[in-house]
This record gives sequence, structure tokens and C-alpha cells, in this order.
Amino acid sequence: MLICPLDYRYGRKEMKAVFSEENRLNTQLLVEAALARAHAAVGNIPKEAAEVITAMATPEHVRLERVKEIEAETKHDVMALVNAISEQCGDAGRYVHLGATSNDIVDTAAALEFRAALDIVQRDIDTLVITMCALAARHRGTVMVGRTHGQFAIPTTFGFKVSGYITEMLRHRQRIKELRPRACVGKMSGAIGTGAGFGNSFFRVQELVMNDLGLGVEEAATQLVGRDRYAELVFVLSLISTSCERYATEIRNLQRSEIAEVAEAFDAKKQVGSSTMAQKKNPMLSENISGLARVVRAYVNPQMECMVLWHERDLSNSSAERFILPHVAVLTDDILAKMNDVFAHLSVNERNMRRNIDSANGFIMAEAVLLALASKGLGRQEAHELVRKVAMQAEADGKGLKEALKANNAVMKLLSAVELDAVMEPTNYVGKAPEMVDRTIWQAQAELGRKIL
Amino acid sequence: MLICPLDYRYGRKEMKAVFSEENRLNTQLLVEAALARAHAAVGNIPKEAAEVITAMATPEHVRLERVKEIEAETKHDVMALVNAISEQCGDAGRYVHLGATSNDIVDTAAALEFRAALDIVQRDIDTLVITMCALAARHRGTVMVGRTHGQFAIPTTFGFKVSGYITEMLRHRQRIKELRPRACVGKMSGAIGTGAGFGNSFFRVQELVMNDLGLGVEEAATQLVGRDRYAELVFVLSLISTSCERYATEIRNLQRSEIAEVAEAFDAKKQVGSSTMAQKKNPMLSENISGLARVVRAYVNPQMECMVLWHERDLSNSSAERFILPHVAVLTDDILAKMNDVFAHLSVNERNMRRNIDSANGFIMAEAVLLALASKGLGRQEAHELVRKVAMQAEADGKGLKEALKANNAVMKLLSAVELDAVMEPTNYVGKAPEMVDRTIWQAQAELGRKIL
Amino acid sequence: MLICPLDYRYGRKEMKAVFSEENRLNTQLLVEAALARAHAAVGNIPKEAAEVITAMATPEHVRLERVKEIEAETKHDVMALVNAISEQCGDAGRYVHLGATSNDIVDTAAALEFRAALDIVQRDIDTLVITMCALAARHRGTVMVGRTHGQFAIPTTFGFKVSGYITEMLRHRQRIKELRPRACVGKMSGAIGTGAGFGNSFFRVQELVMNDLGLGVEEAATQLVGRDRYAELVFVLSLISTSCERYATEIRNLQRSEIAEVAEAFDAKKQVGSSTMAQKKNPMLSENISGLARVVRAYVNPQMECMVLWHERDLSNSSAERFILPHVAVLTDDILAKMNDVFAHLSVNERNMRRNIDSANGFIMAEAVLLALASKGLGRQEAHELVRKVAMQAEADGKGLKEALKANNAVMKLLSAVELDAVMEPTNYVGKAPEMVDRTIWQAQAELGRKIL
Amino acid sequence: MLICPLDYRYGRKEMKAVFSEENRLNTQLLVEAALARAHAAVGNIPKEAAEVITAMATPEHVRLERVKEIEAETKHDVMALVNAISEQCGDAGRYVHLGATSNDIVDTAAALEFRAALDIVQRDIDTLVITMCALAARHRGTVMVGRTHGQFAIPTTFGFKVSGYITEMLRHRQRIKELRPRACVGKMSGAIGTGAGFGNSFFRVQELVMNDLGLGVEEAATQLVGRDRYAELVFVLSLISTSCERYATEIRNLQRSEIAEVAEAFDAKKQVGSSTMAQKKNPMLSENISGLARVVRAYVNPQMECMVLWHERDLSNSSAERFILPHVAVLTDDILAKMNDVFAHLSVNERNMRRNIDSANGFIMAEAVLLALASKGLGRQEAHELVRKVAMQAEADGKGLKEALKANNAVMKLLSAVELDAVMEPTNYVGKAPEMVDRTIWQAQAELGRKIL
Repeated sequence: MLICPLDYRYGRKEMKAVFSEENRLNTQLLVEAALARAHAAVGNIPKEAAEVITAMATPEHVRLERVKEIEAETKHDVMALVNAISEQCGDAGRYVHLGATSNDIVDTAAALEFRAALDIVQRDIDTLVITMCALAARHRGTVMVGRTHGQFAIPTTFGFKVSGYITEMLRHRQRIKELRPRACVGKMSGAIGTGAGFGNSFFRVQELVMNDLGLGVEEAATQLVGRDRYAELVFVLSLISTSCERYATEIRNLQRSEIAEVAEAFDAKKQVGSSTMAQKKNPMLSENISGLARVVRAYVNPQMECMVLWHERDLSNSSAERFILPHVAVLTDDILAKMNDVFAHLSVNERNMRRNIDSANGFIMAEAVLLALASKGLGRQEAHELVRKVAMQAEADGKGLKEALKANNAVMKLLSAVELDAVMEPTNYVGKAPEMVDRTIWQAQAELGRKIL
Repeated sequence: MLICPLDYRYGRKEMKAVFSEENRLNTQLLVEAALARAHAAVGNIPKEAAEVITAMATPEHVRLERVKEIEAETKHDVMALVNAISEQCGDAGRYVHLGATSNDIVDTAAALEFRAALDIVQRDIDTLVITMCALAARHRGTVMVGRTHGQFAIPTTFGFKVSGYITEMLRHRQRIKELRPRACVGKMSGAIGTGAGFGNSFFRVQELVMNDLGLGVEEAATQLVGRDRYAELVFVLSLISTSCERYATEIRNLQRSEIAEVAEAFDAKKQVGSSTMAQKKNPMLSENISGLARVVRAYVNPQMECMVLWHERDLSNSSAERFILPHVAVLTDDILAKMNDVFAHLSVNERNMRRNIDSANGFIMAEAVLLALASKGLGRQEAHELVRKVAMQAEADGKGLKEALKANNAVMKLLSAVELDAVMEPTNYVGKAPEMVDRTIWQAQAELGRKIL
Repeated sequence: MLICPLDYRYGRKEMKAVFSEENRLNTQLLVEAALARAHAAVGNIPKEAAEVITAMATPEHVRLERVKEIEAETKHDVMALVNAISEQCGDAGRYVHLGATSNDIVDTAAALEFRAALDIVQRDIDTLVITMCALAARHRGTVMVGRTHGQFAIPTTFGFKVSGYITEMLRHRQRIKELRPRACVGKMSGAIGTGAGFGNSFFRVQELVMNDLGLGVEEAATQLVGRDRYAELVFVLSLISTSCERYATEIRNLQRSEIAEVAEAFDAKKQVGSSTMAQKKNPMLSENISGLARVVRAYVNPQMECMVLWHERDLSNSSAERFILPHVAVLTDDILAKMNDVFAHLSVNERNMRRNIDSANGFIMAEAVLLALASKGLGRQEAHELVRKVAMQAEADGKGLKEALKANNAVMKLLSAVELDAVMEPTNYVGKAPEMVDRTIWQAQAELGRKIL
Repeated sequence: MLICPLDYRYGRKEMKAVFSEENRLNTQLLVEAALARAHAAVGNIPKEAAEVITAMATPEHVRLERVKEIEAETKHDVMALVNAISEQCGDAGRYVHLGATSNDIVDTAAALEFRAALDIVQRDIDTLVITMCALAARHRGTVMVGRTHGQFAIPTTFGFKVSGYITEMLRHRQRIKELRPRACVGKMSGAIGTGAGFGNSFFRVQELVMNDLGLGVEEAATQLVGRDRYAELVFVLSLISTSCERYATEIRNLQRSEIAEVAEAFDAKKQVGSSTMAQKKNPMLSENISGLARVVRAYVNPQMECMVLWHERDLSNSSAERFILPHVAVLTDDILAKMNDVFAHLSVNERNMRRNIDSANGFIMAEAVLLALASKGLGRQEAHELVRKVAMQAEADGKGLKEALKANNAVMKLLSAVELDAVMEPTNYVGKAPEMVDRTIWQAQAELGRKIL
């Protein structure tokens, strides 16, 4: 009786594994073992005991089923884990979990999961950046119309459009880099963070455990690691997902029947586009991404609400985070993977791009004309007014802008017909779009630290 | 490799069954069968064909595994269903799904799920109302201190406090009643709602299908039923969940160590409260509810975003709704059930309630004194000022208010010591709290249509 | 030094007046006067005193500046109001605010504001419905292409598209009707809702005040009226705003350069569309609506958070609601007015609608052909497969669908060329779209209780 | 007719000035002047013209009223500004705004506002950190009970509790530092970011303008600067506000009548706490902060929605951002200032802190006893079980834990009475709380770069 889409429809194996019960057990075992070693290092427990615990605190010896069995009886998940380890360790069992509170284990283990999740997301971003760089390079100079307010504006290149996505993704990469040391932080400081249960060795033990695990230390914990860290993690992932919604929306718009400049790959042989409309080619992945991003984004607010805990903690964050964290991580990974799929196999229709530009009847070259007129000495305001009036009239008359301009004395006094033709050729008015594609790729190479193309 | 808490930790069987794949298949089969019968009724297809389809369109004949098998190939879920039915129906197979678009089936089936979900939620509410009525009646006159801003205010009764929750839940009951005909609505109008695929019999066929299934008809559909309906459903459930967060927060506050007026039931023998703090009795269910309510609430915004679809629909709502709808329904049901659990087994400590009142040292009776003085002819402002000053002074001196008042001539000129004692007895100053408990229970009985106590 | 857009750019006078300081004073004076009359009616105070208070508790006698002056000293807004009334009333001044707590006045006055706000919103909706009915009627049969996933689907009529908006707005009208008695509710029950300060006359006084003001009674209040009422109000308004975002998004899409089927009115003489692109006609109002709706929608969550107050209330709702309530009401009114503006002056380009249909090269008629083939006895699956293949091939060959079908023997065996021409004429395949326009208008007339067209 | 609380009740002058119309004009003038200088530097316009524009593009010469006058006619704000500058500049007027699009000015000016806003917020944080450091130092060793789940846990110190807030604020300081170069970024790249209007000097002009203004450059703009930058800004500010909600909630809880360990400053002479309850001392600022933080937090989602713009931009972000940005900045500043006020004047009641610890009847020392028993050689599990049982029994018998332990043979075999007394003295069981206060202050000093105490 499956119900949650995370189980049977969405998400990729690797990220789901990070947030699986199996990995939860695994990371918590790693923490308990590191704790035992730290205790041994400062002389709190025998070295041999730490060795036994390290050997036994693995999923091979401490079975998930056994932990669940104990939990069913005690109703306390970490105590169940501790018991399950202890019973494998003989006499050394008494040294398990010494001085720790449940959340020393839970939050420190979560930090290990976050690190793994961030590794995956960063790799996803790199993959996407590389895919987009190839696409941008291929279409460095592919001219298409730029659109503002849904209206034709002036020409751009498809490669430059993609460059905007690449630089945004590089910002996300930077954000993850900065977030990482704040999110991957554990604690080993007992019930309310004072470390009382660890006696004088508290600072040493905590530091050893975190060094061992490669994590940072929460400077002044409560029972928990600071939840601003979690909120930031959730936000950055949801920001990434929302960026993808932007690109997906662009694909959906450019794939419209009337525009048809790009299209998601489509297996014409088998896939049934619609049960009644035989001919449809839908931007299904992009639509899918758009919907998922809304869900991811929605989790930022409740995770922030989970920051407002009472005193040294209450439990209200717990049930919420069980939903928020895996969903945000798994869906962000899913979104990034689909986004990469879309760009990797995107069909780009240069003919239609030119067709659409031409359909503008020259009106999108008004700015170019205005600037050409200004360069010939006409005041900017006058040029603006002149072009605006000619354009309005041309549209009212159903004429093209070039035709109308050529019929206008004020214009033709300043520009020859040949000059006007050159001015109004879209490929001549893409500014530094191609150069910015190059710069973007160089920047990507520098940040990823490898040759991309 | 389980990961979603909806599968292994949260939610109750019945509601999860409503949103299961099995029930999705089942409700969609019901719709396809109803469609066939409607076509037969208006003469579009042979009556026998409709009979065959009705007989075969059941989970016994159309197996979930088979549908998934076909879907894996065609990548289209409803076409897979249609094929799976058709192949069971022999010649009648050609009459399956006639004139319909996928979402005629999907959205109409969803309406059947919503109806079932609302039935469960309404029953949950009724159960909770009954539990709370019993509690309110039991503590109709149990005096405790009312608190505003976390500060002692004036006396109230615990039963009256609960009455506030009951009347709120009765409002939710009313909201569900009003929501129901808007949420339980289907469509059988083809690809974009014009009914073109049904020819002249469109209105009749659509009406027959919905009558057959007990659903309302979308008056002017797109490819979809209006998503304002879904957003309202999600909102009402999240409103209910948030109300429960309010009660749960109250329990958590009243169970605080320093207050200790109520406590969630606790199995002292087995449950381990904390891995290091042996003595703890935590309001675990209430904390759990508080966290879940935040998650439920968060889904309102993305479901509203899903209203803003392009033209006759885009697919962006689909992936989002797969997450939103089951989570909201299952978690609201879960919250209501836990809330009922909390109230059904709540331990109420009347001794501590009195202890806390007494600890106020009479200061919470200031209003009563003020009114008594006013009733003796002192102006309200003067009375307010007089009591305020005496109270301030008393607090500064570390005295009780009664003692201070008795030492004040201006006060004792108007009130005798005996009168002051009576005025300052908390049980004499609960207003109509007990009567409002009675009224609340009568109202609950009237709305539920049955005797509660 | 203005900063908030509500003051200098957004919102309409009438709704802003409802949430102005002046009206706050005015409604609170109304409540204080009603309270005095109720006290007099049950004999708690002299009838003459109530008369004096009623006469004096008006903005003419109790000046906003004076109230602010007192508040600046006492730091308590309602006490300042009470003092400001009292000082106008001579001896009767002692009878002002008797038994009440500040929030008896504040929340009851707020209910009066809500009623006024809902009146305005309902009128806005009626205006919009009437405008849309005229538009729908005018374009009852104006054929255009329906689009799903941004792709051409099958034909519809523009009037039918608008009908979908009308029926949605009628649902909102219904929601407001149902919300009204829940949102327009006051309390006169003292510090924590027990009515203790009113003695035995509590029930009577409270009822008299609310009857006098035309409000409902909170059955079991805390210091406040239930905040689920406020959350529902905020939600319904934000649902209305989101519906408008849907229509606005449609306008923006249909006004795209490549589509150009509708356009917002545009004053060609004066308005400067862009500082550099002379020729632009932007859907400015629709874009404006889209942005504002996001803001309105965002307030639902914090207003729900404001439900979770501690005990008999804390003050955390207060600062939040000062922002939420006026913004939601003023912006929803603003959005509805702009939406009406857009539809009232919408330019509909029937020629482009036909142009776009024709540009589909017959492919949007595939469903019609499929059904025609099925009506000739071909199995539905076979027909689907046949049309799909012909369509795929035609597209690959760059041919129109009609041409390809005519070249296909399997098709032409079943349909004559003349029949195929008729089947593929878009105007013949709009289903019951025009009839549904009629039905929608009848429904609107019934709900608004007046002849619309 | 004021209505928006930002104008008449909330917000501080300096931050409101940043987002005022006056400053908008001022920053936009700065950008236009910088643009003229850049053009002159690369030889696009005469140096003298740039000098005239620089001299005239100031609020003294270009008056807000004049700009509004022109805008009223042209309905375009930036064109109005350009005209207003030009008319002051004589012949040089033709060189104003050369090559730029409106949003080159608007977004670059906004970056200047963001920089100013971040300066203020960072200063607010520093002020708050210094205040909290003083408080933490003062209460470095002030013992109080730690609480989890609202229940007594083990002892802590008030100074350490505050240390947790300080380290969180230092993280926010770090976040602002990292955010700054991403948020303070402008563009000078024309209608859709290609720089076409600037010809070959585009890269140079853009770089010169941003260097001149001290801003970063958007690498690959659309018509706009990337909106992920804005979303991150809004998020970081809302994260800061939510942290303050956490501290404010703590104050509210600790100021509860039953706890009374801290209290907000209260002017006993004038302020009227409640209109009917004379004696109340409410945590008004903290409640106010709690409500405002909910509002700030709510703006994260709509600002993220504003990232999903179509093509090279649509206008939907504009109306939304007009509300979001000033509200988030002004309220965050307001919250931080109030928070500082609360901590700067917080009354800390050490007597009550001890009273509450003592009221725990020794039960909060269970962990200390458990560890003492373990240090005497008892297994940790056995110790846990032993203490748990004694504690349960003691509570059932209404006895203190110490008394019960002393009566238990198993315990007294391992610990002498004197040892038990020492073990159970709360001041002996605060772990490294005081040392962590020291470390926190050192960290604060290092980050702020100055001696704090």
C-alpha cells in the first residue's frame, strides 16, 4: 500500500540512500564509534573497549531489524541503538554512548548526511554546468529574439541566454561552498550543551569526535545543533530548485506551438503524448520540474519555524524535519538531474528562431535604429520620439518598420538605405552576447577547476 | 530502502488507503465504468458493452501490476489503464474511455478520494469533539488561572478553556460541510472542457456520470477541474491542523515543570523519556503535533501556485499535487487522531491548578476588586488607579494583594474584610464559564445530531 | 519620507479608508457606544449616561489627535480612547467601557471593518462578473485554439474560456457569503472571555451589543475572537487574488508577440512603453496583478501562525495582523479593480485567433478526425494509432495533416474528402462551448439576482 | 488617511530613509551620473557633458516633485527621471542615460540601497552582539535550570544560554559578509543584457560605472540583475528575524508568572499594562518581535516566486518587490533594535532562578547522580535504570530525589551522603558553561575586530 511519491515515483537512488533508514543507522553507528575512540584517546575508557565498539558498531553487527525490535519496546530510538550496540560488545558495551545525549548522536549523524547530500548536489550542479556550457558554446552566436513582458525586445543569442543560467548555477555552487562548514557541524555536549556529562574532558572529547568525522563543532549548543543551519541548508536547496523552475519555464515557453524554438527530447515511437490528442509533444520534464520546485520552496518556512524552539529544545522540530529534510534533498537532486536531462537532449530549432525574428517585421530593431540615428547626431530624445512615431504609424498601417523608415525623410536624411539594412540586420545587434558566452565558460572552468570544452 | 516518513512512521491505515495506488486504480475504474453506463444510457454504445465494462472494471480483473506493466511501456498512466480494461472486455473493449480525456478520469477519481478523505476527517472531528465535550463537562467548574502574555490574568475554568476548542472544531465541521460540494466535483468534458469528443450527448453523459458517482459537475472546465477547489481543501485541512497546534501548544505549556496542571498520559513502566535524564515526562504527542502542523500548513502556498496554470492547463500542478494532497490529508488525520489521544487520556491536576492560583498572591483578583469598588460607587478610572497603585506597592514590598488592600483605608472604607475575602476568592470570579461549557455541549449535540453526554 | 507602497502607489481610497486610523477610531467609538446602550438596557447604568456617551462617542467630539496625545503618555491605545471619550462625557464618563477589556473593543471593531471590507470585495466581484459576462457573451462563438502544456490542443471559444473565470468568481462569491458570519463576529466578554467583569448581565449585554452592531457573537472567546476566523478571511481573499493571477497570466500569454490574440488597452499617444524599445505594448496591469497576488498569498501562513497563541492570548498576533489585514484587503481590492479594468477594455483580435488556428496546419483537428473515424466503425485504439502515425509522418514531412490524411488510404476508405473538410473545420469542433457560455451567464444572473445582459 | 503600519508605527528612521522615494531618486541620480562619467572616460561623450550631468544629477537640481510631474504625464518613472535631468543640463542633456535601459538604473540603484541596508543590519547585529556579550559575561556563572520539552532538564547558566544567541548572530554576520558581494551588484547592459546599446565600449562602460559606485557586475544579465540575489538577501534578513523570534520567545517564556526569571524593563509609573488587569507586566517588545518575525519570514516565498520570470524579464517581480524589500529591511532593523532594547535592559532575577531549580526537588540532578554512580563502577545502563526507578518511586511518593536516593542501599553503597550532596548541588553540574561564555566573547571580539568587554 504505497502512498508517498518519494517511494515509488520520484527521487534518485543515491540521494534516497543518504536519507534512508539504513544510512541513518550507519551514520549513527559511525558517531557512536568515534565517541568511543575519543573517550579512549583521553583515557576515559580502555582502548580495547573503543576497539571493540568500533568493530561492532557497523551495520553488519548491529542490524536494523534488531534496533527496531528494541525501539518497539522502549519507544526511544537512540536508546534502542545504544542497547543494540552494547549487546554486541560484551563488557565493552558499558562504554557505549558515554556522556552523550540522544541528539549528540542524531544531530552529528545528520551532519554526515548533509555532507553527503551536499556532495551530491554539488556534483549535480557541476554536471549541469558542464552540459549548459556545451549548449552555450554550441549556440554562442545563434541569434534569436529577446523578449520582455512576453513581447519581442531586441536580438540576443541562445548561448547567451544559457550563460545567464550558468552564472546563476555558479553562484549556487559558491553558496554551497559557504554553507558547507555551517551545515556540517555536530555536537557532543550532552543534554543541554554544557558538556556536564563529559566532565573535564568535554572540550577534548567533542573536538576529537568532530575531527574524526570531519565535521565542525557547534560552539554553544542547546540539546541541539543550531537550527539556523538547517534553515539555511533548506533555503539554498530550494533556491537551486527555484532557479531550475526558471529555466524549465523558459523551455516550456520556447516550446510553445507558436514559438517552437526548442523542444525537449521525445521518443516518437512509443510515448503516448495524450490519450485523445495524437500529435502532442509536451515539455513534460520541464513541467514536472516546475511543480516540484513549488513543493521544495514551501519547506523553507516550516524549517524556519523549527528554529523557534523553547529553552534548550522542544521536540516540535523533530516530526517536521523528518518530512522536510529528505524531501528537500531528494527533490532538489531529482530536479537537477531532470534539468540536466532537458538541456543535454534539448532540440534547438534555429530556423524557427530566425522565423520568429523575421515575424517581428523589423520592429525589434527600433532600438538599433534609434542608436544609429543618435550616432548620426540626432538627440537621443528626438531619435526615440521619431522612431516611436514611425513605428506606431507603421503598425497602424500594417507595414514593416524598415519599409516605413525608408519612407521617412527625417530618417533617410541621416541614414542611407544600405546603412539602414545593416543596422536592421539582427545578427549585427547582439552586443557582446557571444563574448559573454566565452567569459562564462572561462568562469565555469575556473570554478570547477577543470577544462570543460 | 524506505525514506519517506509517510510510509514507515506516520499516518493511519484508512487515510493512507484512500491515497494509495490501489485506491487510485479502484476509483479510476469506477469512473470508467460509470462513463460506459452513461454512454449506454444515451444510446452511444450497446447496453451489453456497458455491462461487460462494469463487470470487468474492477481491481479483481484489472490488476495493478498489469496496469504498471503497460505504463512502463507507454509512459502514460491513464492510457495504460484504458488498455488494461479493454483487454479484459473483448469486443466491448473498444467502448472504454469513449470521448474522455485522461483528466476526466483522473480528476473525477480524485473527487471520489476527496469525498472519502473528508468523511474520515469529519469523523475525526466528531470523535475529537465528543472527547473534548466529556473533558469540558468533567472540568466545567475546575478553577484555574487564565493567562495572557504568559502572565496570570484572572480565573477561568479548565472546562471553559476546552469549550473554546470545541466551538472552533465545530466551525471546522461547518467549513467541511460547505467545502464538500465544491471539492467533490468531477468533469467528463474532454481535452479542454468543451465536450467536443462527446458530440451532442455531452451534457447528458457528463451529468449521468456524476450523478452515478454522487459528485457535482464542473460547470466550465479546462482540461482540469478548477484548482481553487483543491486549494480550499488543502487550506481547510491545514486550518484544522493549525488549530490542533494551538491546543497542543497549550498542553505543552500547561505541562511545563513549573506549571504542571495537565500531563499527557505516560506509560511509566516501559517508555524511556530521555537517554540521560531519567525523570522526564515529555508532552511527546503534543510536540509531535506541533511539528506536523507546520508541515501541513506549508502546503497551502504551493497548492495555490498550482492554480495559475497556463491556458487550458499545463502539467506543473501534477507533480506538486502528488506530494501535497496525500501529505495534507494523511497528516491532518494523523494530527486529529493524536490530538484525540491526548485529550482522551489527559491527566488534569486540579491541586496544581489551585496551587498556581494561590501563588499569584491575590494579584489576579485585582480586576474583581476593582469592579467591587466600582460597584460601591467609586469611578472606574479611580478604582483602576487605586488598585494599580496598591498592587504595585504590594509587589514592591513583597506582600500579597489582599494584605495590602486590607491595609489601605481608601479600599476598606468601601469594602468590609469579609466582603473582600469573598471578592478575592477565585471560584467566585469565573463569570459564566461553567454556563458556557453547557452551551457549548448543547451546540455540539445539535451539530453532531446526537446526544454526547 | 514615504516608503510603503500602500500609501503612495497602491490601493483604492475606499478600502484604504476602511483600514485607516480614522475608521479604526470610528468603529471603536461605535462599539463603546453600543456597550453603553446595552448596559443601560439591562439597567447597569442610567439611560441618560448611555445617551450622553452615544452622543459624544463620535469622531466629531473624540478627536484622533486627542486620542494620540493621551496614548503617547499612557502607551495604551484603548485606554487612551476610553479616557478621550470619558473626558467628553462629564459625569457619564465613568460609565464608559464598563466591564470590557481592550480587545472587546478592538476585535469587535475589527469585525465591523471586516464587514465593510467584504462588502467592497463582493461588489468588486460582482462588477468583475458582469464585465466578464459581457465579454463572454460577445465572444460566445469566437473560435480560438485551446492549449495544453503550451501546445495546441483542440479548438475552443474565447467566450468559453472566460466562462471558466466567471464560474470561479461565483464560487468565490459563495465562499464570501459563507465566510461572512464566521468573520464578522465580536466579543464583549472581558479579559479572558468568561464575562466575569459583566456580572450576571454578561450574556445579555454581549448579545445586545452584537445585535446592535449587526455582528455575531464569539461563543467561547479567550481575550480574543478566534483567529481561525481571521485566517479564513485572509485565505479567501488570497484565493481570489490568486484566481486573478491566473487570468492575468492568461492575458500575458495571449498578448505575447507570437500569439497576439488579446491586448490590454494602451494609450498610444502618451504612455512610454520602454525607455529604449519604442514599439512595445506591454500587459502592464496583468503583470502588476501577478506580482501583487504573490504578496497577498504570502500572508496566509503568518496569519495561521497567529492562531497558535498561548493560553488566553499573547500579543504576538497583534504586530503581525497590523501588516497582514490591511495589505490583504487593500491589495485584493486593488487586484480585482485592475482585473476588471483589463477585461473591460480588452482588445480581442479575432483575426489572429484564426491565424493561429490555421498555423496548426490541421494537427489540432486530429481528435476530431479520430472520432469521425471511430464513428465510422473503426476501433478507438486503432483510430488513435492511425491518426497518430499519419500525424507523425506528416510532421516529419513538413506537410499539413489534412493533406496527409487525404493521401492515406485507410482514412479515405472511411471518410470522403468533403466529410474530412467538414470534420477538420475548427468551428465545427467547439463542442458545447457556446451553450456553456449561456449557462454561465444564467448562473451569474441567478447568483447576483439581477439581469446582466 | 494613513493605513500602513510602516509609516506611522513601525520602523526606524535611518532604514526607512534608505527605502524612501527621496533616496530612490538620489541613488538613481548617482547611477546616471556615474554612467555619464564612464561614457566620457571611454570617449563616447564630451568630458564637459559628463561634468555638467554630474553637477546637475543631484536632488537639489532634480527635484522629486518635478520627476513626479513628468511621470504623471508619461507614466514611466525612469524616463521621467531622465527627462528631469536632461532639462537641467542644457546641451549636455542629450547625453543622459545613453545606451541604458530603465532597469540598468533601477537595479543598480537598488544595489546601492541594499549596501546601505546591509550596513545598517550589520551594525545592528554588532550592537546586539555587544549587548549580549555584556549580559553573558555578567551571568557567566548564574545557575538556572535548563529545560527540554518544557521540562526541567539539568542546570545551565544564563550566560551560556545567551552565548548560544551570540554565536548564532555571529553566523548571521558571516552570512551577510558572504551575501554582500552577491547582493550588491549592478548592471549597465541594456534592454536584455547584451550591451548592444553601448557598442564596443560596453564592457568598459559597465565596469567603470560599477567601479565608480563600488558595486559588482552582473556577469550575464537579462533586463534585470539575477533575482536569486534578491531572494538570498530576503532570506538572510528573515533568518535573522527568526533568530530574534527565538530569543523573544525565550524571554516570554522565562517571564511567565510561574517562572519569573527575567523580565523586560517596565516603566512602572506611566505605562498601563492592561485596561482591566492592573498588575500585569507583559513582555511587550518580545511579543511584538515574535509577530513581526512571522511577517518578515513570509516574504521569502514570494521573492523566490519572483525569480521565475519569463525570457529576458517580465514585470511581475516589480509590484511584489515594492512591498517585499522595504518591509523585510525595515522590519528586520526594527526587530534587531527592539531585541537589543530587550537585552540591554533585561531584569534578571537570580533568586527566582535558584527557586525554580530548588523546586525541582533534586530530580534535575538525576543525570549527575547517574554519572557519579557510573564513575564508581556501575554500568551505565544499570545506573540509568537504577536512578530512573528511584526517581519514579520518589515522585510517586511525593518525595525529593535526594531523600529517596539516600534511602536506597544500592546507591549509598557507592556514594557517601557528603558525596551525594556535592553531586546534587546544581552549581557543580554546569559543565563548561562558564568557559564557553568566555570562548564566545573571544570569538565575538575576533569577528568584530574590537575589544568588547
